[in-house]
Amino acid sequence: MELEGVEIEDTFAEAFPIKVARVLITAVNERWTMEAAKEATGFGTSVIMCPAEAGVDMIASPEETPDGRPGAYIIMCTFGYKALEEQLLARIGQCILTCPTTAVFNALKAEESEKEFNTGFKLKFFGDGYESEGELYGREVSRTPIMGGEFVIEKNLGAKAGVAGGNLFILAKDQMSALTAAEDAVSAVGQVEGTITPFTGGVVASGSKIGSQKYKFMHATINEKFCPTLKDKIEGSELPADVNGVFEVVINGVSEEAVKEAMRAGIKAAVKVTSVVKITAGNFGGKLGKYQLRLKDVLGL
Amino acid sequence: MELEGVEIEDTFAEAFPIKVARVLITAVNERWTMEAAKEATGFGTSVIMCPAEAGVDMIASPEETPDGRPGAYIIMCTFGYKALEEQLLARIGQCILTCPTTAVFNALKAEESEKEFNTGFKLKFFGDGYESEGELYGREVSRTPIMGGEFVIEKNLGAKAGVAGGNLFILAKDQMSALTAAEDAVSAVGQVEGTITPFTGGVVASGSKIGSQKYKFMHATINEKFCPTLKDKIEGSELPADVNGVFEVVINGVSEEAVKEAMRAGIKAAVKVTSVVKITAGNFGGKLGKYQLRLKDVLGL
Amino acid sequence: MELEGVEIEDTFAEAFPIKVARVLITAVNERWTMEAAKEATGFGTSVIMCPAEAGVDMIASPEETPDGRPGAYIIMCTFGYKALEEQLLARIGQCILTCPTTAVFNALKAEESEKEFNTGFKLKFFGDGYESEGELYGREVSRTPIMGGEFVIEKNLGAKAGVAGGNLFILAKDQMSALTAAEDAVSAVGQVEGTITPFTGGVVASGSKIGSQKYKFMHATINEKFCPTLKDKIEGSELPADVNGVFEVVINGVSEEAVKEAMRAGIKAAVKVTSVVKITAGNFGGKLGKYQLRLKDVLGL
Amino acid sequence: MELEGVEIEDTFAEAFPIKVARVLITAVNERWTMEAAKEATGFGTSVIMCPAEAGVDMIASPEETPDGRPGAYIIMCTFGYKALEEQLLARIGQCILTCPTTAVFNALKAEESEKEFNTGFKLKFFGDGYESEGELYGREVSRTPIMGGEFVIEKNLGAKAGVAGGNLFILAKDQMSALTAAEDAVSAVGQVEGTITPFTGGVVASGSKIGSQKYKFMHATINEKFCPTLKDKIEGSELPADVNGVFEVVINGVSEEAVKEAMRAGIKAAVKVTSVVKITAGNFGGKLGKYQLRLKDVLGL
Repeated sequence: MELEGVEIEDTFAEAFPIKVARVLITAVNERWTMEAAKEATGFGTSVIMCPAEAGVDMIASPEETPDGRPGAYIIMCTFGYKALEEQLLARIGQCILTCPTTAVFNALKAEESEKEFNTGFKLKFFGDGYESEGELYGREVSRTPIMGGEFVIEKNLGAKAGVAGGNLFILAKDQMSALTAAEDAVSAVGQVEGTITPFTGGVVASGSKIGSQKYKFMHATINEKFCPTLKDKIEGSELPADVNGVFEVVINGVSEEAVKEAMRAGIKAAVKVTSVVKITAGNFGGKLGKYQLRLKDVLGL
Repeated sequence: MELEGVEIEDTFAEAFPIKVARVLITAVNERWTMEAAKEATGFGTSVIMCPAEAGVDMIASPEETPDGRPGAYIIMCTFGYKALEEQLLARIGQCILTCPTTAVFNALKAEESEKEFNTGFKLKFFGDGYESEGELYGREVSRTPIMGGEFVIEKNLGAKAGVAGGNLFILAKDQMSALTAAEDAVSAVGQVEGTITPFTGGVVASGSKIGSQKYKFMHATINEKFCPTLKDKIEGSELPADVNGVFEVVINGVSEEAVKEAMRAGIKAAVKVTSVVKITAGNFGGKLGKYQLRLKDVLGL
Repeated sequence: MELEGVEIEDTFAEAFPIKVARVLITAVNERWTMEAAKEATGFGTSVIMCPAEAGVDMIASPEETPDGRPGAYIIMCTFGYKALEEQLLARIGQCILTCPTTAVFNALKAEESEKEFNTGFKLKFFGDGYESEGELYGREVSRTPIMGGEFVIEKNLGAKAGVAGGNLFILAKDQMSALTAAEDAVSAVGQVEGTITPFTGGVVASGSKIGSQKYKFMHATINEKFCPTLKDKIEGSELPADVNGVFEVVINGVSEEAVKEAMRAGIKAAVKVTSVVKITAGNFGGKLGKYQLRLKDVLGL
Repeated sequence: MELEGVEIEDTFAEAFPIKVARVLITAVNERWTMEAAKEATGFGTSVIMCPAEAGVDMIASPEETPDGRPGAYIIMCTFGYKALEEQLLARIGQCILTCPTTAVFNALKAEESEKEFNTGFKLKFFGDGYESEGELYGREVSRTPIMGGEFVIEKNLGAKAGVAGGNLFILAKDQMSALTAAEDAVSAVGQVEGTITPFTGGVVASGSKIGSQKYKFMHATINEKFCPTLKDKIEGSELPADVNGVFEVVINGVSEEAVKEAMRAGIKAAVKVTSVVKITAGNFGGKLGKYQLRLKDVLGL
């Protein structure tokens, strides 16, 4: 298969069920919405060693926010709801409540939420009796006086089953072309509602395989078949002779459809970049993940 | 006391001992050094509920980095060395090793380190036998082939006793002046080597007191005496009648002297902003913290 | 009149006819579209002493650009078509053609253009015979080989009559609140298609009156009635007693309706900011400008 | 010659005398210093069709600015002093005076200035009699009340003979590697005091030759010998077989030494990027420019 002259491998991304919360942060201006969104979703690339997978979904224009201020949607993911509730409480309480001028709202529709956490209710106790509860902008909120003014947060935040580990691999003639294409793919995914690219800057430089050939104590080690510097040193490299740069974009989302749409947008952006040779996806032979997102279907090829 | 017409309260910031690691990240360009630095130090405002306090110390120019590439110094802090080692491993392994084009070096001098962690040695096992060890740029490093090229990390990373909780409070006639002054203070602290402002965007909107008057289960609640909206509703407000905006800047650093220099730089920047009325600092009456950083001494007044 | 507790003066912004070109720049990523857009529209605040009034209209998503790459719409304005043609040629030729990976397309619909300039045709001669012409993405373009690859530009760029000088004044209790509100207004105008805020960062700090009381050779001097530092020194100040900060946002657009929509969006954003006291607009008593954009109508009050 | 494995051609950059002003802008925060600096130096890539060559030299820390606020140094260049005076007046008057919270100071030392323009004195008339003159921070300034507060500008701004057209060419295996290397070179030049890279984002994609083979009316056309897409179509291409991406960085500065230092910093940064094959420089055989900046000397090879 080909898309704009770039080979598309007939394979699939293997993805996993995960629990997802989607939250809207507003603030006095875009700068502070993004500061809050970034801090609250930092140290959130992979649940292997991070307490959550998290990222910024989209900018929210003032027209679509309850309080008419600039906003940003963020998504947090963990494997279970208990961990998700803990992460919501810790990340909102420590990184958003503490941040100048912010407010927090639920950003999942009631009909799509499977679960609700009373994070907003819990955080009100920080107000030591000076807080109040009530309706604001048609939402049930708690309002806590703070040094910076007042912290408003919706009492209940929704969560649902989502999808983690959607992905695409970009193979290019050299490292910088692969990186530019990956950055463009991340930007394109950034336009798809309900999805995030949780890794640093959205790009993964170190794709891994399960387990290890040499070190029994390691649960995951490098995927040497995709390492350009090992191309001529190992047998079975997956890299074409002219490929010297490989990056991956990992995508989590609120639904399988959202993740597929994000993969489509990412691939379409990546193939625009000069020297990109091939697009493929990562899987474990279908043995581990519930979802098989075939590039052929994703792209409608 | 006064500085450029702004009242400086004769009080002190109460600060605490903490363990500190300082690490240098380099990458192909400034953009990717900062992506790595931000992700690795995210969800890192306060050890109350974050796994570490962390932030970006300074940009490193290519001249001062071992590999001659753009760099950024980051600082991570926890109360004990065990937690610090865990955080270094998790945050570097998940947020920097995975990030395009990065390398990691120790950024504490040998003579100032009290402790060394073999984080770089541990991460080499990810290479599954394809990694190598040796000297590069005069440092002992491990080198792991990855999809994005090669990940270089110094084998040992130093740590030492540092200081957490240096702070300054900015009181202004209104919220936006206090916020602008706080942003300027954060920028100024950003120029002081060996210090970070771990909160979101460097600014704290929700200063707290220990315990609670009303909720026995709460360890910390709002400091109502510094809340502008409660000024006329409570007794004993610390806010002058014309103050309607208050923000705090919290500073951690590698030493008491570094934190004091950062406080000085921050205060000097803050008093430049119109409508700033008063600078003070937060303490617990000297009962809790080992360090008392007096504004008078800090400013040489 | 009031909007969210902020006084809206019953007055009008006086605006003028101007000639407008709207151009789409695409590039390999958002960063380079914005570099090109900013350089090409720089030194473009007011035709009093700048060769054009110019600014970035909106980001264009890859889906809406002819070549499927990230894009940015820019607008250039001059009083006559001759000057507009010169500015298009100079600013595109010097700031966009020279910029890495860019392409340029007409961004006015054929039916709305009153005039077409063959800027793309003219720039082809730079190719010294190595250029080609033809259809690409359904547009008539010229293609010039350059060091960075190939420069593609649509042969004809449209222009039309537009509106300059739409505006709003933000009066706040202090300078920083007025500035934050002005920044938010500029962000909101940034979402309105077909409009720009040509001044530096979109904000004007130095509103002026026509002529001078003291210096006969000056065509425009300060509007002392809106200067906070003169409030108590002159007679007839327009500033309420509690106002200490005033900023203006000037808006140009492709049509009267677009400018009005931008004013509406800007005002709605500005009144959200604490300490904003009043919104008004600038006019010359209706003597000079063809358009009178009444705040009452703009806001539907 | 080689530097870190990259071929350095033994040639020279041919540079020209130009007149240079260096000005310091300060503002309430870094964001607004940069807004002012960018707008004032926009539409300033090449005096062929721009009214000036201009750019941001360096960030100024609060410690080094007269008013203790964040600052940015900018440089403007024209071929003669008359044009330079006009550009200073227009660009400062229209893009900086109008910009929130800015002040302007001379940034050339008295002993190095050959010429002084009374731009600050001239701009005072905008104050319509409400302005004042006097000493502030040890500088002779005029102070004009404006809506946003007060505009302070030093009365006299210095200018001197400088150097334009220092340059380096980066040849890489592909377009994105050449572009990344060029961006890194621009960042490195950004650290060298007294120099700017006036083109869009600092990078030139369209190197030119003098005159034309085919179009007699053209003064400059593409340098086809450096166009990758023409490599196999023309005779005498300067590009090695494996080069598919070429970008140039043009440098202006206050002195020949500053430009040479900037070239050195830029080349050292560029050779760090993977797939960069060769560095060269542009000249006209030494026939046109007064300065011959040899790469060998610049790099001390």
